[in-house]
Amino acid sequence: MLDYKPNIVLSNDDQEYKVIGTRPVRPDGADKVTGKASYSADINLPGMLFGKMLRSPHAHAVIKSIDTSKAEALPGVRAVVTSADILKPSGRASELAEGAMVNYKFLSNNVLADGKALYKGHAIAAVAAASPHVAEEALKLIEVDYEVLTPVMDAKEAMKEDAPLVHERLAGLTTAAIRAGGVLDDDDPARGTNIANHFEFKLGDPDEGFAQADVVVEKEVSTVAVHQGYIEPHSGTAQWHEDGSLTVWSSSQGQFTVRDYTARLVGIPVSKVRAIPMEIGGGFGAKLTMYMEPVAALLARKAGAPVKMSMSRTEVFEASGPTSGTYITVKLGATKEGKITAATSTLIFEAGAFPGSPVPGGAQCMMSAYDIPNAYIEGYDVVVNRPKTSAYRAPGSPAAAFAMETAIDEVCEKIGMDPIEFRLLNSSKEGTRRVTGPLMPRVGFIETLEAAKAHPHYSEPLEGPFRGRGVASGFWGNNTGPSSAVALVHPDGKISLTEGSPDIGGTRASVSQQMAEVLGIPVEDINPTVGDTDSIGFTSNTGGSGVTFKTGFAAYTAAQDIKQQMIERAAKLWEVTTDDVEYVDGALQHKSDPELRLTFQQMAARQTPTGGPIVGSAGVNPPGAGPAIGTHIVDLEVDPDTGKVTILRYTALQDAGKAIHPSYVEGQIQGGVAQGIGWALNEEYFINDQGHMVNSSYLDYRMPTSLDLPMIDTVIVEVANPNHPYGVRGVGEVCIVPPMAAISNALYDAIGVRLNSLPMNPGSVLEALWSKDNGGA
Amino acid sequence: MLDYKPNIVLSNDDQEYKVIGTRPVRPDGADKVTGKASYSADINLPGMLFGKMLRSPHAHAVIKSIDTSKAEALPGVRAVVTSADILKPSGRASELAEGAMVNYKFLSNNVLADGKALYKGHAIAAVAAASPHVAEEALKLIEVDYEVLTPVMDAKEAMKEDAPLVHERLAGLTTAAIRAGGVLDDDDPARGTNIANHFEFKLGDPDEGFAQADVVVEKEVSTVAVHQGYIEPHSGTAQWHEDGSLTVWSSSQGQFTVRDYTARLVGIPVSKVRAIPMEIGGGFGAKLTMYMEPVAALLARKAGAPVKMSMSRTEVFEASGPTSGTYITVKLGATKEGKITAATSTLIFEAGAFPGSPVPGGAQCMMSAYDIPNAYIEGYDVVVNRPKTSAYRAPGSPAAAFAMETAIDEVCEKIGMDPIEFRLLNSSKEGTRRVTGPLMPRVGFIETLEAAKAHPHYSEPLEGPFRGRGVASGFWGNNTGPSSAVALVHPDGKISLTEGSPDIGGTRASVSQQMAEVLGIPVEDINPTVGDTDSIGFTSNTGGSGVTFKTGFAAYTAAQDIKQQMIERAAKLWEVTTDDVEYVDGALQHKSDPELRLTFQQMAARQTPTGGPIVGSAGVNPPGAGPAIGTHIVDLEVDPDTGKVTILRYTALQDAGKAIHPSYVEGQIQGGVAQGIGWALNEEYFINDQGHMVNSSYLDYRMPTSLDLPMIDTVIVEVANPNHPYGVRGVGEVCIVPPMAAISNALYDAIGVRLNSLPMNPGSVLEALWSKDNGGA
Repeated sequence: MLDYKPNIVLSNDDQEYKVIGTRPVRPDGADKVTGKASYSADINLPGMLFGKMLRSPHAHAVIKSIDTSKAEALPGVRAVVTSADILKPSGRASELAEGAMVNYKFLSNNVLADGKALYKGHAIAAVAAASPHVAEEALKLIEVDYEVLTPVMDAKEAMKEDAPLVHERLAGLTTAAIRAGGVLDDDDPARGTNIANHFEFKLGDPDEGFAQADVVVEKEVSTVAVHQGYIEPHSGTAQWHEDGSLTVWSSSQGQFTVRDYTARLVGIPVSKVRAIPMEIGGGFGAKLTMYMEPVAALLARKAGAPVKMSMSRTEVFEASGPTSGTYITVKLGATKEGKITAATSTLIFEAGAFPGSPVPGGAQCMMSAYDIPNAYIEGYDVVVNRPKTSAYRAPGSPAAAFAMETAIDEVCEKIGMDPIEFRLLNSSKEGTRRVTGPLMPRVGFIETLEAAKAHPHYSEPLEGPFRGRGVASGFWGNNTGPSSAVALVHPDGKISLTEGSPDIGGTRASVSQQMAEVLGIPVEDINPTVGDTDSIGFTSNTGGSGVTFKTGFAAYTAAQDIKQQMIERAAKLWEVTTDDVEYVDGALQHKSDPELRLTFQQMAARQTPTGGPIVGSAGVNPPGAGPAIGTHIVDLEVDPDTGKVTILRYTALQDAGKAIHPSYVEGQIQGGVAQGIGWALNEEYFINDQGHMVNSSYLDYRMPTSLDLPMIDTVIVEVANPNHPYGVRGVGEVCIVPPMAAISNALYDAIGVRLNSLPMNPGSVLEALWSKDNGGA
Repeated sequence: MLDYKPNIVLSNDDQEYKVIGTRPVRPDGADKVTGKASYSADINLPGMLFGKMLRSPHAHAVIKSIDTSKAEALPGVRAVVTSADILKPSGRASELAEGAMVNYKFLSNNVLADGKALYKGHAIAAVAAASPHVAEEALKLIEVDYEVLTPVMDAKEAMKEDAPLVHERLAGLTTAAIRAGGVLDDDDPARGTNIANHFEFKLGDPDEGFAQADVVVEKEVSTVAVHQGYIEPHSGTAQWHEDGSLTVWSSSQGQFTVRDYTARLVGIPVSKVRAIPMEIGGGFGAKLTMYMEPVAALLARKAGAPVKMSMSRTEVFEASGPTSGTYITVKLGATKEGKITAATSTLIFEAGAFPGSPVPGGAQCMMSAYDIPNAYIEGYDVVVNRPKTSAYRAPGSPAAAFAMETAIDEVCEKIGMDPIEFRLLNSSKEGTRRVTGPLMPRVGFIETLEAAKAHPHYSEPLEGPFRGRGVASGFWGNNTGPSSAVALVHPDGKISLTEGSPDIGGTRASVSQQMAEVLGIPVEDINPTVGDTDSIGFTSNTGGSGVTFKTGFAAYTAAQDIKQQMIERAAKLWEVTTDDVEYVDGALQHKSDPELRLTFQQMAARQTPTGGPIVGSAGVNPPGAGPAIGTHIVDLEVDPDTGKVTILRYTALQDAGKAIHPSYVEGQIQGGVAQGIGWALNEEYFINDQGHMVNSSYLDYRMPTSLDLPMIDTVIVEVANPNHPYGVRGVGEVCIVPPMAAISNALYDAIGVRLNSLPMNPGSVLEALWSKDNGGA
């Protein structure tokens, strides 16, 4: 690692920056490494109680009755709640939250099971007591009468006509409701299905396209549920105030989501909830929803005291959302010169116990990196007796890419074409029509592929038996949304910046850098803080790789506000018009009189006599986040005796638009690749015949450690996003998309067998080797 | 109290308001009465230590040496600090803080004594330990070698040539430095005095004025130190972070002052200190300065753990600032028709151990209520071996009014004129030149006097022996300063308002009301919070009766910002220009199309699609706070056997400009009167011959309780301040100015003897009665 040199390919950005592109120390670093940073479970309040959740021991069971009387009688127990205590919104379309699009009925039923336990670990009841031990004892005294039902654990099984039904009524979904994760329509006669959604996209004429093809590859892949594996379990604390307002501390990717969801399920206006974002020990999408905060609030209201609830690791695995298990078929046609003529795909995603898998994301991303004239995609969102899935880094795209990018490799093999050349020939570019509708904006796919082609990794020979090299690309659309920033100028020329985005990947730094760049001051002079819901304007979740784009945009705008105010103050001081004053290189300058000059710091010290405090603020909702593209190259070696796969070398190239803080871009890419390697080779929810996860600890759920991985080399390609003042694209997600396909392609190169199911663990690799020896593959 | 009816005299304001002038429940009320509000001493942090202060047992002593080794060796002790640990700025003029004007050398020496203990209770050293009891034990192990000196406790004594010198070098004060509380100038040869300041103001020709007078009254009054008597003792907690920044929680009237002072004495930039304002249990001016926060910070830095320090009640009395003891002479000449021709006065104020008594305030206010063509005032600021005085409600004005307003009563008696008629004849009005220089702005003195004259209290006969009625007026200039407000519009149409002013008198309500008035929404829809120094722009202290003026102005401006943003959004939605849209009655309205209308709440729900969050912000420094005027009428009865004075009836009339929340205006007036009655009749620092206060507990320091006071009737006069959009003037201070003079005048009416020294306690009254019986008076 010591000889690692960062590599940035600057494609089309000729601007000179002072702060952007540098690598300052993150402002939250010291407190984090010394244990002073406060996470959700660090909250302790006077008189605070501890809440514990009773969870279903069955994957599928009718809850005939719950008797909490013995638990309530246990000394030290202060409150018990069940589904009877939580609000259960109707789930009709009108109940959808504006913007966030969530079905509150399903959310409520996931937070506390209503009538039926839908997966092992589903929350049934909760207890608050003076100590966590008393609360655990009390859980044992809650008597639940279950009628155990047969669970359905697999999407294809669940789609069968005679499958057990997870929900008795689930049908009649409108197209508009697909994005909402499935909405019940009481007026629709259709009944009795586990298919919560089915949707289609079509472009051109696929049959005609396949007719033009010289080669056609058709294949099916499958993936199983994996967990995001954040270090910090979910935790939330609730405290009521005498005026009926509620304060919630939690670990989340969006304090405003915690606020809105909690308010809705507890039955108070959103402005009555103050949600305080604590430091977050990882989320990767899974902390975009919420499990315990409203239960803690209900317990706290009953008990008349604050209540803290924290999950154990087993609870995190069993009751928070992993990603979907999937089945994906793909059919790909191309000419012998390598031009794609048609592609079709069917994506089947397990949603878990409630509608809302990331199958729309998979469909959106699967073919978007390519210019495909004739295409068709259909998606199925299927409920099963598993925990409700939640987002996981580029939700839906990794499984879809596993299908698409291995199919491309098969086509390349058939026509004898270099896989990077094939992608260059077919790459999507500005103006390309996507199968899902929109035109592709400016994007750096070609530049990224060219960088991959030119990279030594791609040309250096890989020698030795059981070794192989693979290539794959990936696409992610990136998101934006409303965001807010408020900046206070201190008299010593420093700035306190409050912004609304919980910081997972170093965004306090990357957002501050954009403000510093505008003002021409050192980024160390900006002290960024993430505000609570009463302290900063609405800011959409930290997700979709959106923060450096949207909250950077807010900080940029707030900095422009400060600049304008300072220009007005200087004009006033100098008794000139604002047209005579410009702000250059961190200083106010009279355009024609060089002696009239005040640095930012000097003006900061003159706020009081020139009109009072200078506060810059911005509320924005910037369009055009700009998609992200990555191409990965991997070398690996297979141990033919054990089936173990060792990653020898890994290079990830990615269009970052503009790397505001290159270290964090590199870190995001490396983190995404590491998770992708785990997903490819080892990780899985291992489920027994009762529908119970049997590897729900980090001892048994095998994530890669630093010992399992080589240094992951990164190349940042910069094709500026025209919709952002500094060209930013989100970088956090697309990096997890290519690894599974790249590794499968490399495995084929190493052993001559295509592994089409994840994980490609030692057992599967051995099976593949044996099948080849037996004449298979 | 049940039949009490509020009385508001509206003089010149014909505006119709919806929220202003109403009496909503204060937003912090419920948490305060149920014990949930967090005050400074409520802070508890993991690993927190408890700091205790060793204080001088002598009123005046050289500190020859301090040996802390035994204390440091005591198990459980984690840090000991002395004056050697604190920064000691030079005290030269260049060291003055901009704006706040404080001499940091004196501040540092008051916080930890440097070489000499200047009063009993002066801080000498501090200990941090795992428990407060260990810290107290450790204090006993600190060995201090004192050389005890003779103390000087009285201003007149201290002004004598041969008086003990409190400071060895104290002279050469520039006029500009007077306001700074005395500044050392090393270049000046003058040496050896306790007179820290002497200043003069002159208008016209006083000798000529007295020559025109038919009657001249000449008298001297004296007052002794009294304490503000807030319920909550000083408390502060300090925690360091790994990046060298510091968080301070404290009880203060200005988190930015805590920030600035702590940063200066600890030696870090102001932006490295985050000062968090806790709820404050009273301040009355005494929490404008700071005693323990930097010591807690120094201890915390040495110990590597957070440290909390809290004063006991005795420490509050002995080591925090009371107001000055004073000697004031006044000479007043008038024609027999009642026109004042000349006035002169000498004010001598005890500053305590460091320069900076409120004598400038006394001089500014003393004659300002009157149109006096020829006047002279001089002031002396004198150091003595008492705790450094701090501000107390209208600092300086009560003692000055005690002199001026009793002199007026004597003139009225001599010329046989009604005292209200006399004041009406001589009252200051818009354009009157004050002896201290400025012209009087628009002010409601005449209106207040007319209201007093018309009040039934003034005309109803007061019968019975030993009963008397007195009248007095008072003046206070009121302050302004920089202030900030940021308001977030929630999607449900509620607002979170962050402002920078610690709330002592209900200002969260009065500030919110001004925002609600602009926006035409209920004040209950606004949730106000006081921000910390990283969360809100610089806001000057809560003092000078400035908050409802300046922070109300900030809230008004932030509301206008919201209004403007909403107009722009509506124009965008309706595809019209902003000129076509107006904001009326809490709604956006197209000027010509009545169907195009959106309420504030409806627009709040449409923020995201129209451009993102709406955040209104303002940083202001509004000029023209507008002075305050009050006139009080008191009836009392003397028990000739015990000398006890019973207040029978009290009516306070005051120009509030505009009473935003009349209940709090009434509460401020009643509170000021209650404190004034205590000051008049009972309260005093009782000092023994060693210079030790011997009544330093609430058992012995006799403040009035509800049993001692009648209902205090209030009349609010409203003469709008033209410099504020709603006409606000500060109301909190002027109400303490008239009581001492009014009671002295009433006592004269009751017993025929003038009491010219405070307190007019039973002993003094009996002495007066006896002296009269012996032919005195």
